[in-house]
Amino acid sequence: MRKVEICFSPELIHLHSLQGKIVVVVDIFRATSTMVAALANGISEIRTFADLEDCRAMKEQGFLIAGERNGLTAPGFEMGNSPVAYLNGDYEGRKLAMTTTNGTLAISKSSEADEILIGAFPNLGATIEYLQKKDQDVLIHCAGWKGMFNLEDSLYAGALVKSLEATHEASEDGALAMKALFEKEGHDLKGFLSQASHAKRLQNHNIESDIDFCLTLDLYSIIGKVEKEVLIAIEPH
Amino acid sequence: MRKVEICFSPELIHLHSLQGKIVVVVDIFRATSTMVAALANGISEIRTFADLEDCRAMKEQGFLIAGERNGLTAPGFEMGNSPVAYLNGDYEGRKLAMTTTNGTLAISKSSEADEILIGAFPNLGATIEYLQKKDQDVLIHCAGWKGMFNLEDSLYAGALVKSLEATHEASEDGALAMKALFEKEGHDLKGFLSQASHAKRLQNHNIESDIDFCLTLDLYSIIGKVEKEVLIAIEPH
Repeated sequence: MRKVEICFSPELIHLHSLQGKIVVVVDIFRATSTMVAALANGISEIRTFADLEDCRAMKEQGFLIAGERNGLTAPGFEMGNSPVAYLNGDYEGRKLAMTTTNGTLAISKSSEADEILIGAFPNLGATIEYLQKKDQDVLIHCAGWKGMFNLEDSLYAGALVKSLEATHEASEDGALAMKALFEKEGHDLKGFLSQASHAKRLQNHNIESDIDFCLTLDLYSIIGKVEKEVLIAIEPH
Repeated sequence: MRKVEICFSPELIHLHSLQGKIVVVVDIFRATSTMVAALANGISEIRTFADLEDCRAMKEQGFLIAGERNGLTAPGFEMGNSPVAYLNGDYEGRKLAMTTTNGTLAISKSSEADEILIGAFPNLGATIEYLQKKDQDVLIHCAGWKGMFNLEDSLYAGALVKSLEATHEASEDGALAMKALFEKEGHDLKGFLSQASHAKRLQNHNIESDIDFCLTLDLYSIIGKVEKEVLIAIEPH
């Protein structure tokens, strides 16, 4: 049986072996949810940047640029970090440059893996289908919040461990714990996460529609995959 | 309302502020359970050592020395790491030197706290009583396993968060998650933990009685407290 494990923070990723594994990077509120929404709505590729100015500079290369600071679209940027902004525009074939902190760090620290996917609830089913068809062990890399455990990324990880239980054994304690937690709280993700620190921060910014979107299952059948530091959409089949 | 938070690993403790808080260090299998058993059975003080030879040298100062490597009592040592070894001997007034890895690291990395306690299930109720009488916020510092999240320490943390809910708010996501997990699995700790990586390692060493002891609630009314790097027993009142 293949194995699945969870790393709760980029600060702990050095304790895990990545070689030969598929790593699923997850930052539910909101980086990886936004990436999946963008790819499912026509964006052809995404590049991520830790630094706001590096991201801004991509505009000259024809990229749509997305960046937020303190909950507002950053000055001069066309998009914030809201996934729902991609649902009603015409983004077909556009390239996107995004600046994120936790998500970008988790992706860059996953580079030794065989493959890097981007996880979000709106394409959970497609990601599961893809992982089940591959021979590799899976590591779910939670972006966390400034290095700390966070609830939404960990619950996504629990949902993935639970969904893979027919093919992948929970091989360490984090995976066992989050699978059990998802069994208990997965029927009402929004209710449970309303207590979470990051959800509270988001609620303060009046972005209820983003939270709803980020917690909606199986809207899309695409996979988000990092290929040579560029994020693209692939089909699970 | 006071606050309670969890740090899942000594590798993450730098992300937490310790000043003004009471830190409860926990290493359920088996360091802190053994410390509580020793203090409750007559040991007057415990000093901990990361290094086996430093610990061994304490014998010349009249200390009982406890050390284990690869599941066996280390050569020349009088005690291993088994808590049940303290239940039937005459240890009244003896001083103990223990070598542990994860537990010692978690204690030394907690030194900025107002107070450091040692947590274990056999004195959970007494520790709760003590914390409820104090004005400080609480941080539960899980020793983990080689820097990683582990199930038994985290479930103890969840039990403590749950037990303090009348007086201490779960102030971050780890505390919320482990409280919920304890609510789901706390009725059968041994059954749930039998899946855990460390419990499996212990079972391989045929120390079922140690596991049973470590998961038994409220045998003792003493608190384990670190005073100037020495661990002593105090009463909760």
